[in-house]
Amino acid sequence: MLTIDNLPPCPVETTLMLMGDKWKVLIIRDLLTGTKRFGELKKSLNGISQKVLTQHLRAMEKSGLIHRKVYAEVPPKVEYTLTEVGQSLKQVHDAMLDWGQAYKSKNSQQ
Amino acid sequence: MLTIDNLPPCPVETTLMLMGDKWKVLIIRDLLTGTKRFGELKKSLNGISQKVLTQHLRAMEKSGLIHRKVYAEVPPKVEYTLTEVGQSLKQVHDAMLDWGQAYKSKNSQQ
Repeated sequence: MLTIDNLPPCPVETTLMLMGDKWKVLIIRDLLTGTKRFGELKKSLNGISQKVLTQHLRAMEKSGLIHRKVYAEVPPKVEYTLTEVGQSLKQVHDAMLDWGQAYKSKNSQQ
Repeated sequence: MLTIDNLPPCPVETTLMLMGDKWKVLIIRDLLTGTKRFGELKKSLNGISQKVLTQHLRAMEKSGLIHRKVYAEVPPKVEYTLTEVGQSLKQVHDAMLDWGQAYKSKNSQQ
């Protein structure tokens, strides 16, 4: 379990530890538009393996960024939703979105 | 050379491609406070190898985020500075800083 004691002293490093992975950022991007099933995430994250997606989702659940809901159905249905803490990463996502748009726009004008 | 044609369609993925690596973010953090020499960066980025730091600095120079200045001295002196495009990543850095601070503060209150 994450505690304040094992977080890096630098807050930027803390953020990187929790979401500083390409796939984690893209999982957050996908969940910012609403709850998703495992299969929907896998389809959206072009190239991710089932194993790696599972590992990232578990780590994000453990650090309190996402909530996992299992429905007692056959076949089993599993849904992932951002928690309040996860939702607050929208500010980081949006800063990346804005910067990426500006960079692309600048490069297309050259 | 990066062109608009080989950037990912999603702007968030573009940002991740250019700075979405733990070390790149920390290099940007260090250069946001001013020009640094290679040795200063290596010392600040605890645990990075000379090879990996060199690779990241070259990639960031190529994508226009940093400027490398070599002084004709013995021993050679090399300095790295953020370009205007690199400086504009401050918004992403600051969003990470704010989020990390809030996360740490929330966890320390529990």
